[in-house]
Amino acid sequence: MKNNTVQYKNKKKISEPVIRRLPRYRRYLGELMKDGVERISSGKLSEMMGYTASQIRQDLNNFGAFGQQGYGYKVDFLYEQIGKIMGLDKEYSMVIVGFGRLGQAIAGYIDQYEKQFRITGIFDLPDKVEDIEFKDAYVADMDSIKDFCSRHKVDMALLTVPRSEAQHACDTVCEAGIKGIWNFTSVDLKIPEDVHCENVHMSDSLHELSYHLKDK
Amino acid sequence: MKNNTVQYKNKKKISEPVIRRLPRYRRYLGELMKDGVERISSGKLSEMMGYTASQIRQDLNNFGAFGQQGYGYKVDFLYEQIGKIMGLDKEYSMVIVGFGRLGQAIAGYIDQYEKQFRITGIFDLPDKVEDIEFKDAYVADMDSIKDFCSRHKVDMALLTVPRSEAQHACDTVCEAGIKGIWNFTSVDLKIPEDVHCENVHMSDSLHELSYHLKDK
Repeated sequence: MKNNTVQYKNKKKISEPVIRRLPRYRRYLGELMKDGVERISSGKLSEMMGYTASQIRQDLNNFGAFGQQGYGYKVDFLYEQIGKIMGLDKEYSMVIVGFGRLGQAIAGYIDQYEKQFRITGIFDLPDKVEDIEFKDAYVADMDSIKDFCSRHKVDMALLTVPRSEAQHACDTVCEAGIKGIWNFTSVDLKIPEDVHCENVHMSDSLHELSYHLKDK
Repeated sequence: MKNNTVQYKNKKKISEPVIRRLPRYRRYLGELMKDGVERISSGKLSEMMGYTASQIRQDLNNFGAFGQQGYGYKVDFLYEQIGKIMGLDKEYSMVIVGFGRLGQAIAGYIDQYEKQFRITGIFDLPDKVEDIEFKDAYVADMDSIKDFCSRHKVDMALLTVPRSEAQHACDTVCEAGIKGIWNFTSVDLKIPEDVHCENVHMSDSLHELSYHLKDK
């Protein structure tokens, strides 16, 4: 199977919609592993996931020929490969900016389910930091972000500040050299070109739900 | 402008990608209103939002001819119309199943920013309910959901239970007759055909972020 890896290393640019589907593939494969399933065809995956079998084959072919004709995909191998593709075989250092209820909830979630993301720093308003403690994370007021990042490698910042503070917090972490932003502020942030931002717009999904319910 | 509304009432089926973009249009229009902008062209919206102007015109044409040649869109009118299209001119009754840190954080968010969604009931494990209080919401253990729904109209359920409880909680609210699920459990739920589910898969977006950062 060595060829696959090589093929992936000489990688072409993967389109965003494919990237967005990969975590879902991985989740389904994880469920299959838990159920003791060792291999699966694109047809069966298609039934489970609601994508067409040809879409699935096409998606996964982006990264090399993982499947074998008449055999299907080896579940644990594919799970692991997608993890590698997503960069989940590495460890990331994350700081949290804004440690209200949402920040705390997500920190707890990461600590439980996403152990390769290590929360190394937590930043909030000066009058809040005294009461904050989370494992071995460094806790300080928001003015200290730059200083902290100059002393530690930080890969990403989780933003859970109020909307009115969102762009300022974003500017601060970008100036500190952080290249990844996980944004829960419901604001579309302006970011430099070399920074990647993933948004979790909770209201958007709530409004999609109300769209589907409004006539029920 | 009456024609628009009529046109929308005789509505064709709107595609999911369009529906998914609508909340974002509304957010941008809301920002423009705050800045005192009264009208905007599809070209300017395109610059702000990163969609092409023709995409924007096409999206909004689904709901009637909101724009006027050479004038553009009237910001407040379009904001309001999209809100109506999303069903945000109505009030919804929501129950929360699982009131840990995440449930509490989202409840606070809704109470602050999404006032047309009223939290009417909160359900958790028997040993947790004693300590729960949230405004005038009814609080009880999870076995009481059906009974509560038989006495009150409930439009949607927010699920923030642990992964292992997710499908069971989902089955319970569906059996209770709830037609909308806002799912934060990171599990892809099996639901009846007449129920709509919106997922907020936090891990998926975190993994997309790690994909983009892995080689930085």
